[in-house]
Amino acid sequence: MTRNEGTEKLVLLLSGPNLDLLGTREPEVYGTDTLADHVERARVAAEKRGYGLEHVQSNHEGDLIEAIHGARGRCAAIVINAAAFTHYAWGIHDALAAYDGPVIELHISNPYTREAWRHETVVAPVATGSVCGFKGLGYEIAVDGVIRLLEEGAGE
Amino acid sequence: MTRNEGTEKLVLLLSGPNLDLLGTREPEVYGTDTLADHVERARVAAEKRGYGLEHVQSNHEGDLIEAIHGARGRCAAIVINAAAFTHYAWGIHDALAAYDGPVIELHISNPYTREAWRHETVVAPVATGSVCGFKGLGYEIAVDGVIRLLEEGAGE
Amino acid sequence: MTRNEGTEKLVLLLSGPNLDLLGTREPEVYGTDTLADHVERARVAAEKRGYGLEHVQSNHEGDLIEAIHGARGRCAAIVINAAAFTHYAWGIHDALAAYDGPVIELHISNPYTREAWRHETVVAPVATGSVCGFKGLGYEIAVDGVIRLLEEGAGE
Amino acid sequence: MTRNEGTEKLVLLLSGPNLDLLGTREPEVYGTDTLADHVERARVAAEKRGYGLEHVQSNHEGDLIEAIHGARGRCAAIVINAAAFTHYAWGIHDALAAYDGPVIELHISNPYTREAWRHETVVAPVATGSVCGFKGLGYEIAVDGVIRLLEEGAGE
Amino acid sequence: MTRNEGTEKLVLLLSGPNLDLLGTREPEVYGTDTLADHVERARVAAEKRGYGLEHVQSNHEGDLIEAIHGARGRCAAIVINAAAFTHYAWGIHDALAAYDGPVIELHISNPYTREAWRHETVVAPVATGSVCGFKGLGYEIAVDGVIRLLEEGAGE
Amino acid sequence: MTRNEGTEKLVLLLSGPNLDLLGTREPEVYGTDTLADHVERARVAAEKRGYGLEHVQSNHEGDLIEAIHGARGRCAAIVINAAAFTHYAWGIHDALAAYDGPVIELHISNPYTREAWRHETVVAPVATGSVCGFKGLGYEIAVDGVIRLLEEGAGE
Amino acid sequence: MTRNEGTEKLVLLLSGPNLDLLGTREPEVYGTDTLADHVERARVAAEKRGYGLEHVQSNHEGDLIEAIHGARGRCAAIVINAAAFTHYAWGIHDALAAYDGPVIELHISNPYTREAWRHETVVAPVATGSVCGFKGLGYEIAVDGVIRLLEEGAGE
Amino acid sequence: MTRNEGTEKLVLLLSGPNLDLLGTREPEVYGTDTLADHVERARVAAEKRGYGLEHVQSNHEGDLIEAIHGARGRCAAIVINAAAFTHYAWGIHDALAAYDGPVIELHISNPYTREAWRHETVVAPVATGSVCGFKGLGYEIAVDGVIRLLEEGAGE
Amino acid sequence: MTRNEGTEKLVLLLSGPNLDLLGTREPEVYGTDTLADHVERARVAAEKRGYGLEHVQSNHEGDLIEAIHGARGRCAAIVINAAAFTHYAWGIHDALAAYDGPVIELHISNPYTREAWRHETVVAPVATGSVCGFKGLGYEIAVDGVIRLLEEGAGE
Amino acid sequence: MTRNEGTEKLVLLLSGPNLDLLGTREPEVYGTDTLADHVERARVAAEKRGYGLEHVQSNHEGDLIEAIHGARGRCAAIVINAAAFTHYAWGIHDALAAYDGPVIELHISNPYTREAWRHETVVAPVATGSVCGFKGLGYEIAVDGVIRLLEEGAGE
Amino acid sequence: MTRNEGTEKLVLLLSGPNLDLLGTREPEVYGTDTLADHVERARVAAEKRGYGLEHVQSNHEGDLIEAIHGARGRCAAIVINAAAFTHYAWGIHDALAAYDGPVIELHISNPYTREAWRHETVVAPVATGSVCGFKGLGYEIAVDGVIRLLEEGAGE
Amino acid sequence: MTRNEGTEKLVLLLSGPNLDLLGTREPEVYGTDTLADHVERARVAAEKRGYGLEHVQSNHEGDLIEAIHGARGRCAAIVINAAAFTHYAWGIHDALAAYDGPVIELHISNPYTREAWRHETVVAPVATGSVCGFKGLGYEIAVDGVIRLLEEGAGE
Repeated sequence: MTRNEGTEKLVLLLSGPNLDLLGTREPEVYGTDTLADHVERARVAAEKRGYGLEHVQSNHEGDLIEAIHGARGRCAAIVINAAAFTHYAWGIHDALAAYDGPVIELHISNPYTREAWRHETVVAPVATGSVCGFKGLGYEIAVDGVIRLLEEGAGE
Repeated sequence: MTRNEGTEKLVLLLSGPNLDLLGTREPEVYGTDTLADHVERARVAAEKRGYGLEHVQSNHEGDLIEAIHGARGRCAAIVINAAAFTHYAWGIHDALAAYDGPVIELHISNPYTREAWRHETVVAPVATGSVCGFKGLGYEIAVDGVIRLLEEGAGE
Repeated sequence: MTRNEGTEKLVLLLSGPNLDLLGTREPEVYGTDTLADHVERARVAAEKRGYGLEHVQSNHEGDLIEAIHGARGRCAAIVINAAAFTHYAWGIHDALAAYDGPVIELHISNPYTREAWRHETVVAPVATGSVCGFKGLGYEIAVDGVIRLLEEGAGE
Repeated sequence: MTRNEGTEKLVLLLSGPNLDLLGTREPEVYGTDTLADHVERARVAAEKRGYGLEHVQSNHEGDLIEAIHGARGRCAAIVINAAAFTHYAWGIHDALAAYDGPVIELHISNPYTREAWRHETVVAPVATGSVCGFKGLGYEIAVDGVIRLLEEGAGE
Repeated sequence: MTRNEGTEKLVLLLSGPNLDLLGTREPEVYGTDTLADHVERARVAAEKRGYGLEHVQSNHEGDLIEAIHGARGRCAAIVINAAAFTHYAWGIHDALAAYDGPVIELHISNPYTREAWRHETVVAPVATGSVCGFKGLGYEIAVDGVIRLLEEGAGE
Repeated sequence: MTRNEGTEKLVLLLSGPNLDLLGTREPEVYGTDTLADHVERARVAAEKRGYGLEHVQSNHEGDLIEAIHGARGRCAAIVINAAAFTHYAWGIHDALAAYDGPVIELHISNPYTREAWRHETVVAPVATGSVCGFKGLGYEIAVDGVIRLLEEGAGE
Repeated sequence: MTRNEGTEKLVLLLSGPNLDLLGTREPEVYGTDTLADHVERARVAAEKRGYGLEHVQSNHEGDLIEAIHGARGRCAAIVINAAAFTHYAWGIHDALAAYDGPVIELHISNPYTREAWRHETVVAPVATGSVCGFKGLGYEIAVDGVIRLLEEGAGE
Repeated sequence: MTRNEGTEKLVLLLSGPNLDLLGTREPEVYGTDTLADHVERARVAAEKRGYGLEHVQSNHEGDLIEAIHGARGRCAAIVINAAAFTHYAWGIHDALAAYDGPVIELHISNPYTREAWRHETVVAPVATGSVCGFKGLGYEIAVDGVIRLLEEGAGE
Repeated sequence: MTRNEGTEKLVLLLSGPNLDLLGTREPEVYGTDTLADHVERARVAAEKRGYGLEHVQSNHEGDLIEAIHGARGRCAAIVINAAAFTHYAWGIHDALAAYDGPVIELHISNPYTREAWRHETVVAPVATGSVCGFKGLGYEIAVDGVIRLLEEGAGE
Repeated sequence: MTRNEGTEKLVLLLSGPNLDLLGTREPEVYGTDTLADHVERARVAAEKRGYGLEHVQSNHEGDLIEAIHGARGRCAAIVINAAAFTHYAWGIHDALAAYDGPVIELHISNPYTREAWRHETVVAPVATGSVCGFKGLGYEIAVDGVIRLLEEGAGE
Repeated sequence: MTRNEGTEKLVLLLSGPNLDLLGTREPEVYGTDTLADHVERARVAAEKRGYGLEHVQSNHEGDLIEAIHGARGRCAAIVINAAAFTHYAWGIHDALAAYDGPVIELHISNPYTREAWRHETVVAPVATGSVCGFKGLGYEIAVDGVIRLLEEGAGE
Repeated sequence: MTRNEGTEKLVLLLSGPNLDLLGTREPEVYGTDTLADHVERARVAAEKRGYGLEHVQSNHEGDLIEAIHGARGRCAAIVINAAAFTHYAWGIHDALAAYDGPVIELHISNPYTREAWRHETVVAPVATGSVCGFKGLGYEIAVDGVIRLLEEGAGE
C-alpha cells in the first residue's frame, strides 16, 4: 500500500459525538485524558514520521460526512473514532466508501465487551483496519500504524 | 495498567489453525509473508522494548488452551490470532478468562468485511483490545502496543 | 435522590425532530396544542415549585447532544421528548449517559401502541423514568414529577 | 377525555403478584415503603381531587381479571401495576380491552433498564398511558394524572 | 453456604400444575409412582439429616407464589418442580427472587430432550442449582443435596 | 375413533378468561349472544345426539386444569375455548395431554386475522381438531362434530 | 351474515394438490375414504339445506385461482382445502381477497400438530373461519356450517 | 389524485447525504453525471408540464426535515432520494408523514440488489410510490411521473 | 445500455395472477381501470417511441416462465408485474436471470406500505429497476422508461 | 433396500422449471450440455443396469406433481432436479411423501455455495439421498446410484 | 433402569477443557477445591455403593470422544462435565449417542445464570439427567445418583 | 475440470469423529458395514480408474486440518465425511479453502432429514459437490464421481 497520487502527507483524525467530553465522562471506561491530550499525542506521533494531522470533532453526522468529502484527494489516510455514530450512521459509511485511502476504525474501549448495540458497526465494512481497547494509547497507535502502512507497505 | 506481579518480561504470541500456511494461502487476503516472517518481526519489536517473545502455533484447540494455561503467572501479556477458532472455540475463551494479564485479539485481515460467521468472536469478550486488518504489520503493532500498555499505562 | 451539588434549580426540557409541527400534525394522535402551549404549561408547573425551565427544540441530533452537554453541572434534571430520535440516535444516549441528574423520557402518545420501530428506545436505558400517553398533560406531569423526585426523594 | 357516563368518581388501583412484599424485596430497586404506604399516598392524592380509590392486590391472574370486570360501568379509570403479569398474562390484556375508561400502566422501577423479558408488555397495547421509574412517587403521580386527564381533558 | 439466620431446619418442596396426576399421566415419561410416594421418600431423606419437609402442590400460580412468600425467613431452602409453570410464570420467578435461601430447580424427566418450549425456564435465573431426569430419585436427591449444601458448604 | 372405555356420554365444554363478558365485550367481534346462550344451544345439540353437556367457565388457569383432570375417565370428549389462555398457559396443555379422549379447540372469531400473539396456541399441539370463526354457531358445531367423531368414526 | 346479492344458493368446494390421492396416501393420517366420498357427503349435506355444491380439484395453483374468480358474484360461499398450497401460494390468497362471500379454511388433519412449515397459512388472513382435524367429517361439517352462517346469521 | 388546495405548481426535489459527490463516487454504480446534471434534466421535465422545481441537497438530516416542513401547504409533491438516510433516519419518516401531497422515493441504483442494510427503508411506509434503478433517467422519470399523477389522476 | 444484438424493438409486458380482475378487485387500492386499459396506454407509449408491445397475463407460474423464455433473443426488454408471484415464485426469478435485456419490476400500489409478506421480492435481485405506486400511470411510465434506457442510455 | 413389489425396472427422472434452457443459461454455472444430453447419458447408465428411464420436464408445479402420482406402484425410483421449485413448492414435497420408493435429490451445481434462498429445500425431508455439484456427470451418477441402491442394497 | 449386560460396576467421569485449573480459576464461581479433590470425593461415593470410578480430563475434544468410545460395553454409566465443550462440540454429542448406558450432565455452577452462549448444550439431548450448581458437592451427587438409578431403578 | 499440475493420481478420503464406530453405532441409520469395509470398496473403485486412495480417520479436528494441508499439491481431490465436525469446525473450512482441487462432501445418511443442527455445514461453502444418503454405496460413488470429474471433465 502506498500513498495515493496527489494526496499530501496528512492524516485526517475524526472524532464523533460526545468525544468532546473525554476526560470527564465515565473515566473508569475512557480514562481521564481529554480529547485535546489524545489529539496532541497523535500529532506528535504523526510528525515523528513526517506527517501532519488534521483533527475534526463534531456531534453532527453531516459535519463528519463533509470532513470526509474534504479529505478526498488531499489527505493520505483517515483515522475515525465515530463514537455512537459507529452503530447507525450509514451516511458516514457511504462517505468513507467514496474515499480512496486507508481508513482505520478507532475505539478507546473495546466495544465488543459492552452493550449489544455497540457490536454493530457501519465503519467496519469500509475500513482497512481497526484499533480498539488501547485506551489512551489508541490514538497514537492508530495514527502511527496507518502512516507505516502507507510508507512501509504491509508485507504484501 | 502494569505488569502483574511474578510475571516475566515475556509476551506469548498464539497462532491458531491454518496459520502455518501463511504466505501460500489466499495471498490476496493475507499477503505473501510466512508466519515465521511475522513472528520474527514481532520478536524484534518486543526485544526493542526489552521483552522476550514466545510463539506457539497449533491446529488443535487443546494445545492452545494448554499454552494459555502455561502463561499464567509467567507471561506478562498474550497476543492471540485464533484464526477460525475465533468463531466457535469457547474453550479458548474460558482459558483466556483464567489468565490475568492483558490479551490482544489479532487478525491479519478485517473479519468484519468477510463472511457473517467470521463476525462472531469468542476472544473479544475476554480481550483487552484488538488489532485487525493491518496485514503484515499487525503482529508487530499488537506486540509493541501491548508492551507499551504494560510499561507506560494507558493515559488513565 | 437530591439535587447534585453545583446544579441550579433548573430543568432542561428537550424536544426532538418534527415537534415544532405540534398542533398541526396528526392532531388525532397529538392533540391541537402547539409546542409553545406545552412548554408554557410546563414552565408554570416548574415555577410553582421554585424551578426555572429551559427549553430547546431541534431537528438536528447534534444540537440536542450539545444542549445535554450544556446541562452538565448546571441543570438539576432533564425531561426529553426525543421524538423519532428516540428510536436510533445513540449519540443522544451517550450524551445522557454522561449527565448525572435524573432523566425523564417523555412521549405525548404511547409509542408501544404504535408501529414496531417505535418500540425500540435509546433513551430508556439511561432514563430514570418515563411518562407516556398523557397527551397535553405529559409535559407538566413530567416536569412536576422530576422536581418532586429531586425535592422530596422517592420513598427510598 | 371525560368520565364515561354512569361511572363514579372512583379510581381502581390494581397491584399484581409479589407487590405485597414491597418494602422488604430488593429495596435497592423498589425502595423501603410498603404497598400500604404507596396506596395511602395515592388515596390522599385522589381525595384531594374529589375521587375515591379502590385497591386490589392479588397474586392470582384470575382475581385481577375479575376486579377489572367489576370496574366496568362503575370506576372512572384504572391504574395497574401488573408486576410480573405485565409480561405474559394476556387474560389481563383482554379484560382491560373490555373496559372503557382510561388505563394507566404503572411500574415503580423502569422495566426497560432490567432483564429482556421485562420489556414485553401485555398492558401497553390497551393502555392510555404509563408512568415508570418514579419509585415511591409513581403511585400518586399515576392516580393524580389520570384524574386530571378525566377532569381537565388533555389539550385535545 | 450456611443456613440464613432465623430460618428453621425446614425445606419447602413445591410441585406445580398437573403433578397431582403423577403415576397416572404418561407413565412412560414420569414413572408409576404417585406424588405422595415421591414426597414421602423426600421427607425420609430430609429427616435423616435432621430437617423437616413441607410440601405444597397447586395448579394455581398464585398459590405457589404465596407459598414462596411464606417461606421467607422461615424455611432454609426451596426445592421446586414448577412443571409447566417453569416455562412462562414469571410471577414465580419474582417470588423466588425475593427469597434469600438456596433454590433447587427439579424436573423428573430431562426437559432438554423434549419440546422446544420446555427449554425456556423462568426458574433457572433465580436458582442455585438443578436436578433433572433422575425420575423417581430426583425428589430425594434434590432435597438431600440442598441440605448438604446448607450443612456442609460447598467446597468454597 | 370410538368412546374410551369407562367414559359416559358426556362432553365437557370449557370457557376461558373474559368469556363471561360475552355479549357485552366488543360485540362487533364476538356478537351479542351471552355465554349462557351459546352454552344452551350447545347443550341442545348434544342432547339431540343423546349426550349430556357439562360447562365450566373460569378466569383462573388452575380451575380449568382441575376441570380437565375431572374429565379423565368420565367425559367422552372436551371442547375448549381457552380464550387468552390459548396463547401462553402451558399448564392447560399438559392437563389436556393427560386426557385420553378427543379435544376440539374452539374460537368464536378467527384468531389468525387478529394480533400476532393470538397466532400461537398451546392447545393445538394436543387437539384433535379445531373450529374457528363461526361466531355464534361455533359452540354447537364443535359439540355436534366431536360427538359425531365419537359415534360415527371418521371415515378411517 | 347473509347471502350476497346476486349469488346463487351454491357453495364452491376447492381441493388443492395431492388430494386426488386421498384414500391411498398416508391413510393413518387422512383415512381411507376417497376424495369422491368426501365430496359426495358434502353434497348431501348442502342439498339438505337447499344448496348446490360445485367441486374443483387441481394440482395447479392457477386452476384454483381461476375457479375462485369464477365464483365471484355467483357462489354464496367457498370452502377450501388448499393442501400444500396453504403454506405458500399467495396467488390464492389474493384471489380469495377479491371474493366477497364467506370463506372456510378446511383441513382433514390438524396442521398444528405436524411440521412447522404447515403452521403458516396464506388462507387464514382472508378466511371467515376454519374447520380442522375432523377427518372424514370435516367436509360436511364445513359445508353445513358455512350454509348455516349464511342462512341463520351467527348470533350477531 | 389532485393537487392539494393552496399548494403551488412546484415539486420539491430532495437529495440526501453524499449525493453531492455524484459523478465522482463509484461511477460504475451511479454513472458519471453530476447531481447538477440530474437536477437540470428534472427541472426541464417539470417545466415542460408547467411546474417549477425546488432542489435541496444536504448531508444533515435536520436540514432535510426542515425542507420537508417548508413544503407543507406550498409544494404540490416531493421527490426524495434520501441516500443513506433512507435506511435509518426515522425523523425524515415523521416529517414526510406530516406532509399531505404525494411522495416519490427515488434511488439511482436498485438498492435491493445491494447490501442487506440497504433493503430497509424508512421512506417507503410514507411514500406514494418509488422509482429505482433507472440511473441517470430516474430523476426526470420521478418528477414527470408525480406531476402526471397530480394532473391526470391515476385511473382511479 | 443499448439494445442487445438480435432483439427486435419489442417490449414484453407480463402480468401475474389475479391481475385479470383489475378494475373490479379492491378498486380503492388498484383503481377502476381494467387490465386492458393499462395495456392499451402502455402500447401507445411504446409505439410513440417506435416499439411494439407484447402482453401476456397468466395465473400460472409456468406460463410466465415460458413467456420469459420466449423473449430471449427476441424482445429488447421486459416489464413485469408479477403480482402475488413476486413474493415466492423463484422459478420466475431463474427465468429472468436467463434473460439478457433490462427487466423492470412494476407494481400498481406500493407493496412496502402493505402486508409484510409483500416486502419480499424474487424479482428485485434480477431487475434493472422498478416502478411502484403510480397506480394507473405505472404501466406506461415503466414501458416508456425502459425504452428510453435502451435508446438514450442512462447518463453512464 | 429392494424394489417395491409391483414396480417395474424403471426410473422416473424429473426436471423442474427453466432446465429446458440448459446449455444456454449461465453456462459458467451449468455447463454447455443441453438437457437432452444429460438425459441421454442417464438413459445409457440405466440401461447398462437393465433399467428403463422415463423423463419429464415441466415449468408447471402441477405437472411434476402429477408425474410423481403416475410413478406410484409403477416406477422403482425417482431422481428429481426440482430446480427453483426445490425451495418453495411444498406440493411436490407432499407428492413425493406419497411415493414409496427411493427418491434422489439432484442439483447440477452446489446450491449451498449460492444465494441463501437456495439453501432451503422442500425435497430433502422426503429424499433418500442427494447428489449435488457434479455438473454434467450428476444425472448419470444419481441414476446409476439409485439403481445400485435398489439392486445391491446398501451395506445394511 | 438396570445396568446393561456386559458392563462392569464402573462409572466413567469426564472433565472437559480448563477444569484442570479448578481451585485457581475464578474461585468465586467455582470454589477453591481442586479437580483432584472433586474426583476423590466422587470416588469415595462410588465405592460406598460398590462401584469403581475412572476419571479422564482433557482439553482436547478428540480425547473425550475416545474415552467415551472406550466406555461402550464396559462402563455402566457416564458423568460428564464437558465445560466449554458443552456448548458447541457436537462430536461429543455423537459419541454419547453411541453409548448405551445412562449419561449425567454435570456443571459446578448453574450455566443458566451466566452468559447466553452457556445456555446451549450439546450434551442435554443425549443425557438421561443433569446436576447443576451444587458446586463442590456436584461431583459426588451426580455419581451417587447415577449409581442409584442403575441399582434401584427409578420408581418406574 | 482437470487435475491440478503437480498432483498425483491420488484421492484423499477423510473421516471425522465417531466414524471409527461405523457398523456398531445406530446400525438402523448407518448400516452394519465397518469403516474399513467402506474404505476398501472406495479403494477398489479408485483403483479401477487408475487412482490411489489415502484414508485418514480422526476424532481430532487438528488432525484433519493437517491431513488437508498435506494434500496440497499432492492429492488430486478430497472426499470428506466430516461427521459432527461438519456443523461447527470452521478450522476445517479454512483448511479446505486453502486446497485447490475438487472437494466432495460425503454423508452416509441424509442430514437434512435429521436434527436441525445437522442442516448447517461448514464444508458446503468450500465444496465442489456432495453425495448424501446412499449409505454403504456413498463412499465409492463419491470417490468414483470425483475421479470422473477430474478425468472426463463435466460436460462444460
